[in-house]
Amino acid sequence: MSITEPISELETAHTITAFSEPLAEHLLVRFIQDEIHKVGMKRAVLGLSGGIDSALVAYLAAKALGSENVLCVLMPYKSSSKDSLTDAKLVVDDLKTDSMTVEISPMVDAYFEKFPEASPLRRGNVMARTRMITLYDLSMAHGALVLGTSNKTELLLGYGTIFGDLASAINPIGDLYKTEVRALSGHMGVPESIIKKLPSADLWVGQSDEADLGFTYDEVDKLLIDLVDRRIHPEILIERGADEAFVRGVQEKIRRSQFKRRPPIVAKVSSRSTIHDFMYLRDWGY
Amino acid sequence: MSITEPISELETAHTITAFSEPLAEHLLVRFIQDEIHKVGMKRAVLGLSGGIDSALVAYLAAKALGSENVLCVLMPYKSSSKDSLTDAKLVVDDLKTDSMTVEISPMVDAYFEKFPEASPLRRGNVMARTRMITLYDLSMAHGALVLGTSNKTELLLGYGTIFGDLASAINPIGDLYKTEVRALSGHMGVPESIIKKLPSADLWVGQSDEADLGFTYDEVDKLLIDLVDRRIHPEILIERGADEAFVRGVQEKIRRSQFKRRPPIVAKVSSRSTIHDFMYLRDWGY
Repeated sequence: MSITEPISELETAHTITAFSEPLAEHLLVRFIQDEIHKVGMKRAVLGLSGGIDSALVAYLAAKALGSENVLCVLMPYKSSSKDSLTDAKLVVDDLKTDSMTVEISPMVDAYFEKFPEASPLRRGNVMARTRMITLYDLSMAHGALVLGTSNKTELLLGYGTIFGDLASAINPIGDLYKTEVRALSGHMGVPESIIKKLPSADLWVGQSDEADLGFTYDEVDKLLIDLVDRRIHPEILIERGADEAFVRGVQEKIRRSQFKRRPPIVAKVSSRSTIHDFMYLRDWGY
Repeated sequence: MSITEPISELETAHTITAFSEPLAEHLLVRFIQDEIHKVGMKRAVLGLSGGIDSALVAYLAAKALGSENVLCVLMPYKSSSKDSLTDAKLVVDDLKTDSMTVEISPMVDAYFEKFPEASPLRRGNVMARTRMITLYDLSMAHGALVLGTSNKTELLLGYGTIFGDLASAINPIGDLYKTEVRALSGHMGVPESIIKKLPSADLWVGQSDEADLGFTYDEVDKLLIDLVDRRIHPEILIERGADEAFVRGVQEKIRRSQFKRRPPIVAKVSSRSTIHDFMYLRDWGY
């Protein structure tokens, strides 16, 4: 069938199940328990930014493991908003988890002394990766698995730093769109002030996710559900009135960020290479 | 067939092609060209440690892209061996690539001021990840793709730091065993002093890979080729006289390091999740 011929939506759209907060909570609490216990551990560590995504992960982890087994790490940079720190502390106080504050400014500034001309984007990436270093170091020091806090919207759009905030051992919320993160956060009792505030990566003063991206999470989640989950052809969405530049732009973001969702590409030489042919090792006998 | 019954080697062993230096050179030079050009770039950046693996990658990259398009970054820590730096400079002088030295001591020491009791292993991981930060920052500053320098032996044994030296955009030598790296290095003109010296991650004074691992690369490569490439059952190798503790220990290292070869595990909630169901995006239409 040529794509210039009319295609009915029914012929192409996959039916998807509506998001259910109680079911998601159940699945994600079990996921955290299973993944941590099966590697013989009982603790988790996560970076608490003051934003909704990491707050939700903290609530899920406390429910899954008990608050005494969750270490929340606050990692402000000197330009980070004070409100972020206040909101992060709200979560720690409510859940009564262990917490620790590690200022990343000394490390980050030590690096940029050599590159004073570096752009805000370069600085933001170094900050995100310095936080990863801190979490992974504390993971080893405390025998705790690093929990990821990137949501599905961010993962699909590549809105995050590879080997920085995108790095984790297990990610409980990576299959929840931002709008689903909001719904589940309400259900799990994340403080209203955190749910309601404007989303920001807080990598520079006044940063706003939606201004960076050029659209709102409500708009893009609706489009992503149509494209990815319901598998509706973009041409149909455009025919039905979706903004063409918006649809093409989002498709391009997904395509160009593929490398952030994959392990490094290994050149294939032998008949059995890591990455390509030798992936399923947990149950590997020989 | 029960594994207690005798199994003939012929029933289980896959035939593998002998390693050919000219063929490997041809494949890997083309791999570097293709992967870099298809994302619209022409430059590569890599960390040159003074060891054989990164030296070989530099020789391959210079051949693939021209030395003017290769940036070699030397990233010593204050305890790094001076010989490492000398050997790295030997490669830069021979190939006439661009090079830059970035001392990682200021960043690493800034971090450990807060954790003075940290073990050498924690310190080694932070060093490896600080080098990753440097390479990825220079990758953005110079429009150059980060080349990985981990070999197949290291990848299979998990002998490397996740999100540290194991992080890269593309890895030309990840399907070459250490012994094959040596053979190809000889073929490509890597300086003899680098090929012949004792392998070391140089994360602390006097570190030796083979002492860390408890066996030589010659021994373990032979075992890995039997287990992974020829797919010979470990029981058969033990029956034929392989040391049982050695075989079981290597299997366990492979199993326990699986997480270093995979993207973070995302909890599956929807019918189409990143990682699980939505991997092949470069050619993604809708």
